[in-house]
Amino acid sequence: MTKIEGWTQSYIDRINSALESSIPKDKDILTQAIRYSVLSGGKRLRPLLVYLASELGSAPTEAQDNVGCSVELIHCYSLIHDDLPAMDDDSLRRGKPTCHKKFGDAIAILAGDALQPLAYTLITESNQIEDKTKVKLVSILSKACGWDGMVEGQILDISDHDYFSLEELDSMHMKKTGILIIACLEMGGMISDLPEPEIKLLKQFGKKVGLAFQIRDDVIDLESPPEVSGKAQGSDLIKEKLTYPSLIGIKASKERAIELSEEAKEFAKKLSGDSNKLIKLCDFIVQRDY
Amino acid sequence: MTKIEGWTQSYIDRINSALESSIPKDKDILTQAIRYSVLSGGKRLRPLLVYLASELGSAPTEAQDNVGCSVELIHCYSLIHDDLPAMDDDSLRRGKPTCHKKFGDAIAILAGDALQPLAYTLITESNQIEDKTKVKLVSILSKACGWDGMVEGQILDISDHDYFSLEELDSMHMKKTGILIIACLEMGGMISDLPEPEIKLLKQFGKKVGLAFQIRDDVIDLESPPEVSGKAQGSDLIKEKLTYPSLIGIKASKERAIELSEEAKEFAKKLSGDSNKLIKLCDFIVQRDY
Repeated sequence: MTKIEGWTQSYIDRINSALESSIPKDKDILTQAIRYSVLSGGKRLRPLLVYLASELGSAPTEAQDNVGCSVELIHCYSLIHDDLPAMDDDSLRRGKPTCHKKFGDAIAILAGDALQPLAYTLITESNQIEDKTKVKLVSILSKACGWDGMVEGQILDISDHDYFSLEELDSMHMKKTGILIIACLEMGGMISDLPEPEIKLLKQFGKKVGLAFQIRDDVIDLESPPEVSGKAQGSDLIKEKLTYPSLIGIKASKERAIELSEEAKEFAKKLSGDSNKLIKLCDFIVQRDY
Repeated sequence: MTKIEGWTQSYIDRINSALESSIPKDKDILTQAIRYSVLSGGKRLRPLLVYLASELGSAPTEAQDNVGCSVELIHCYSLIHDDLPAMDDDSLRRGKPTCHKKFGDAIAILAGDALQPLAYTLITESNQIEDKTKVKLVSILSKACGWDGMVEGQILDISDHDYFSLEELDSMHMKKTGILIIACLEMGGMISDLPEPEIKLLKQFGKKVGLAFQIRDDVIDLESPPEVSGKAQGSDLIKEKLTYPSLIGIKASKERAIELSEEAKEFAKKLSGDSNKLIKLCDFIVQRDY
């Protein structure tokens, strides 16, 4: 198993600690469901991208944590809802029963519904972000989550696919995963006041790395056993989902992911700041088994 | 049937037209579900409160419309999710099949999921609201929708109730309905730059009127036939929901609603601006049959 490299651990610890303080602590069932889903591990790729992008400049610590938490909460909400019986009907997530399996469908729907606004609250309540930047952050995040962003991606993902071209698959992946990944990089750059051309490079990097990430995800579904991936193996195959391997085969999918990660590196190298960690992350993304 | 009085029609027409322009127009199934649910009529009470509160000062037209739409979209999202089989399992809403009855559970979940961020996008994209006000609006709205706001209200509403006091019922109503109604008044006042004491009065007004509204809703469930209310009659009773009539009976519930609406009027009368319409609205709220 390719574990995420050691250098990322301090970021993961940091976001886990920030998430722990950002989510409710009551003992009621909603809070239990929220804490169960948010604090269940995970790669924390999205906040990691916020941290790495913002480290190209000098964002205040609290701003990084708040924005990192907000994107992770959005990601967690989308996982909870995607796993519901009406959607992907998945039982296993991060090696544990999915939220609705443990707490029931109603609580899972409501946990997701509560995580979404909490993401916006975290941005607006931050003490170290200027109002004009907060407005931009909320705008970017809310559009990424919207009807022509993540939600449309999920609609395409659960639709029947009689015929689909590679371009259409790329477009689905872009909406379902890519837009939020790009948003992480843009938001990270923004809280560090990076100049517009740098943010543009980050977004180009994000577009490549987001697609590479999703193709690798498709491969992991086929190749990684549950004890490694934390998810049921072959789940996409059973549900006849449209994936990269289903369209072009496993070998070509792996090659395409690597190609995209190399293209991503090229954009990272053009950044003015030290982009070494972003470059290293590209390798992890296409080598990971989970 | 007590129809909402004629003077409100111009506001209803205005919000319907603003909603029509604010939501997506594509022809895909998600857009169809969103348009079906958002443009299906309804009292539009929440945007009406935004308009009336903001008219105490002088908010720009576009700001009123955007904030009015944002609160109505949040309300629509909550209705779609509350109606789901895993929650209230309702088949009829505004006299038509509920969103999931028409489009299926997955699309209904996703339509709600898409309406929530669109509410925040509308605020951030407004051209006539200052950034510092936008941040406050997003903060108020996201907290009202959150884990200790609307979502907690819905959790309490679908929970089993062995014993509940009137105070606990009031608290449930406050979270499920009251917080968003108060938010409408606060946000309306804010885009008109009303001074803090005026906004405080509006919130006190909202607390009373919100509870009166919800008690009247409980009564309507028992007394109004579907062709008037647009909802199944006796639905709360069948589901053994905790309501005002179930705790203190219909007569006392009606009296309590009127009492609260009179208390609301007292706060409205203290406002510096012309609060005549807010006062008239109090009568509609406790006399309506739908």
